[in-house]
Amino acid sequence: MVAGSKIIPYGGPWACIPSRKGGKSADKGSEKVLQSVEEAIDAVGLRDGMTISFHHHMRNGDYVMKLVVDAIARKGIRGLKLSASSLSAVQDSLLPHLESGVIVALDTSGIRGEIGKFVSAGKLPNPVMIRTHGGRARAIESGELPIDVFFVSAPTCDIYGNINGVEGPAACGSMGYAMVDAAHAAKVVAITDNLVPHPLHRISIPQTQVNYIVKVDSIGDPKGISTGSLRISSDPKELMISDYASTVIEHSGYFKQGFSLQMGSGGASLSAAKFIRQKMLDKGIKAAFGVGGVTGLFVEMMEEGLVELLFDTQSFDSESIRSLRKNSRHLEMSAAYYANPGNCGPIVNNVDVVILSATEADIHFNVNVLTGSDGKLMGAPGGHPDTAAGSKLCIVALPLLRKNFSVIRDAVHTIVTPGETVDVIVTDRGVAINPLRQDLTYNLKDSGLPILSIEALWQLGNELTGTPEPAPVGGEIVGLVEYRDGTIIDVIRKLG
Amino acid sequence: MVAGSKIIPYGGPWACIPSRKGGKSADKGSEKVLQSVEEAIDAVGLRDGMTISFHHHMRNGDYVMKLVVDAIARKGIRGLKLSASSLSAVQDSLLPHLESGVIVALDTSGIRGEIGKFVSAGKLPNPVMIRTHGGRARAIESGELPIDVFFVSAPTCDIYGNINGVEGPAACGSMGYAMVDAAHAAKVVAITDNLVPHPLHRISIPQTQVNYIVKVDSIGDPKGISTGSLRISSDPKELMISDYASTVIEHSGYFKQGFSLQMGSGGASLSAAKFIRQKMLDKGIKAAFGVGGVTGLFVEMMEEGLVELLFDTQSFDSESIRSLRKNSRHLEMSAAYYANPGNCGPIVNNVDVVILSATEADIHFNVNVLTGSDGKLMGAPGGHPDTAAGSKLCIVALPLLRKNFSVIRDAVHTIVTPGETVDVIVTDRGVAINPLRQDLTYNLKDSGLPILSIEALWQLGNELTGTPEPAPVGGEIVGLVEYRDGTIIDVIRKLG
Repeated sequence: MVAGSKIIPYGGPWACIPSRKGGKSADKGSEKVLQSVEEAIDAVGLRDGMTISFHHHMRNGDYVMKLVVDAIARKGIRGLKLSASSLSAVQDSLLPHLESGVIVALDTSGIRGEIGKFVSAGKLPNPVMIRTHGGRARAIESGELPIDVFFVSAPTCDIYGNINGVEGPAACGSMGYAMVDAAHAAKVVAITDNLVPHPLHRISIPQTQVNYIVKVDSIGDPKGISTGSLRISSDPKELMISDYASTVIEHSGYFKQGFSLQMGSGGASLSAAKFIRQKMLDKGIKAAFGVGGVTGLFVEMMEEGLVELLFDTQSFDSESIRSLRKNSRHLEMSAAYYANPGNCGPIVNNVDVVILSATEADIHFNVNVLTGSDGKLMGAPGGHPDTAAGSKLCIVALPLLRKNFSVIRDAVHTIVTPGETVDVIVTDRGVAINPLRQDLTYNLKDSGLPILSIEALWQLGNELTGTPEPAPVGGEIVGLVEYRDGTIIDVIRKLG
Repeated sequence: MVAGSKIIPYGGPWACIPSRKGGKSADKGSEKVLQSVEEAIDAVGLRDGMTISFHHHMRNGDYVMKLVVDAIARKGIRGLKLSASSLSAVQDSLLPHLESGVIVALDTSGIRGEIGKFVSAGKLPNPVMIRTHGGRARAIESGELPIDVFFVSAPTCDIYGNINGVEGPAACGSMGYAMVDAAHAAKVVAITDNLVPHPLHRISIPQTQVNYIVKVDSIGDPKGISTGSLRISSDPKELMISDYASTVIEHSGYFKQGFSLQMGSGGASLSAAKFIRQKMLDKGIKAAFGVGGVTGLFVEMMEEGLVELLFDTQSFDSESIRSLRKNSRHLEMSAAYYANPGNCGPIVNNVDVVILSATEADIHFNVNVLTGSDGKLMGAPGGHPDTAAGSKLCIVALPLLRKNFSVIRDAVHTIVTPGETVDVIVTDRGVAINPLRQDLTYNLKDSGLPILSIEALWQLGNELTGTPEPAPVGGEIVGLVEYRDGTIIDVIRKLG
């Protein structure tokens, strides 16, 4: 005891290596590279009931989730919670492990395909937790979502665990979502198909966060990871929506030198970027920065000087991956920097203008990007509610009709993004401004846009398609839709 | 209640912004830039008894510690613990605040000058805690050293709090030590003299970690922050030590293609680099990476292709600051990446060879870099014990005699770096190899070096100077010397 403090006397340089992460691999000269996923599962001490996590930058090309959960199943471990920044259609391959009880709880942004059906059928023992990208970062950083083992898909990894996503055969670009898990999980295992000598020159996840490394043949299919090139819409309806959306921006009061913008990866949102680009060229306006999910179009705009800086949490195509690798003004950012509402200000708080897509919207400007109007799980909140809340002008762009029904409803089936944060809804049949935004109504009055009330747009949809069938009521709760702040904004109910 | 979990229902998009850091500045549209340090002290709620922290990249040019503690004193707040990555001579200016009880506890690596005397005289109410750079990162990241408010000296800061150290009138280069405090302090206040529009292109500390910003006239004197150019020794004794040290490396078995090295900023260590550089040129050997405290000489070696990559936690001169700004192979690293022994492996664990200086060493190879042989506080552990433990070959280089006494003692006055981690002691009068390292004894037997036992070196010193006065015993404990793992390796006692 010295001055009231208990002290531990020195016991030799390696007698007492403190172990934030178990410590073993902090020992001098220890090895991190293991021979198999099974060996890594043993090394981290994975047990029944723990929480494992994954990131979704490999999107529909991901091999790692299946590879890892297959190995876990072979070892007879059961009752796990699987937390992922999102789940893609390729994760249908996990279905057997949901059916057999290896995985008994899911925590994700996106849910769709066979897993969506499994959840909707009420077969998962626990309600699925649906989170926004910012909400997931908040939950992890606050300790609300503790992760026992994070399995990181590492496009390039050195033998001591430094990782980047811009090099290697399965390069995915930004590692933004993975950064949060790597910093906070109790243990981190890197799965890589590109193991290189130490030290890596470009480091997105540092060796200090990685306990073990396993080399596998392939972590993902490049064709599923990124689309090779940007899809430019030629659908006249989509082009009209894009034209309207860009005109809203032009007249909104936010379209000025040094503005900032975010564009989603949805069709209308993407093609709107082409129109905005032209208006920027015409008026000599340059953006201070762009935020995203980054696509090649955004990269082109940066490279031609229209956008000064790009913040990238997820690279959507090969052009954006290439750009992140070589361009110093293309910055990789973590999901927390992007959108965690619990820190001192994520970049979504600085966004002037965002264009987002939707599966449906309603007369209260609430937006659904998770389920269809029929309640089927088919999407993901992603950063939608985060950037809607953070931005000064949030435009939701969608066609009024999809197939034979109107997507402007009296009430969306699932509220994902609350109406108070959605400023303008743009459809091919008209543009509705949130009555909370009288300033926008004023600014847009001479824009030449077909502006109607949201109720008029709703009625127009109903007139064209007939009043829709009432949405199925559904049964017991099978999922919770978490708003970014940790509250529950809606629930998912059992279907049919 | 859903499935046994308590849920909080959604209450509006801004009803429930979670507040990791108090939250206010996470609100949409909130301002972070305040008008004065006093206003920031109010905003973060600083109270008696809290812990404030600072980083020492501004070294002897620092204006921020005085500026902030002066403001705290004016507000009548007392009883604070001050934690700093180090304290320089310029911090003598804090003495009145120690005398008056504004600061009642210190937690630092370096301690010297008037503050050293104050502590040694037993005037501080609590024992000073002396930490290594890695040990401080460990203490902060583990929660053992909670920090209430971190005041970060920000050479460049945008209006939303993104910070870098490579631009601005008081550029200091790497922000490595500051990164750890910024990530873990409950509140962070940026003090800057270069407030720029959002967003900064080069970000070392993100806006998500910064609560408030205060613009001041100047955060530091560039002349004190960095030395303009490297001092190349012309002292024959120092050149001899450097020659010996580089010869040890050459014959050690570690001098091969792709080796890694760290060089301290001390005189002998610096000039040894010149000799190593020549040997690398002669033999066509290139290093995979260098670690440091980075100096212009290291930068030159990188720029001429002798060192592939530099990891920089602290930039010592204007050349290294310039290099960090422009060279993509010069990487900024946090103190945790550098040396925290509690994570999954700091970079010191990967260092092959390090040359370090010392104030004194002893026949057990223990090294003192904190006090003189007379017990006077005059130095800092810095990264010395961290890199000694992590590296494969740790060379401590010092002249056998300083003034009229030998610095090889039977026992150092203060053990900072334990002998088990020190492999070779190089002096101008001979080279001693730690008996634990029989492999080195074997490798160096034909090196032509004057190799003697450490006891012979000690005796030689004593013969030249006479047996030294026994070190003063000292009185009550006034300081604790923490080893990097959190144990206490030695104590500082009251003098005089």
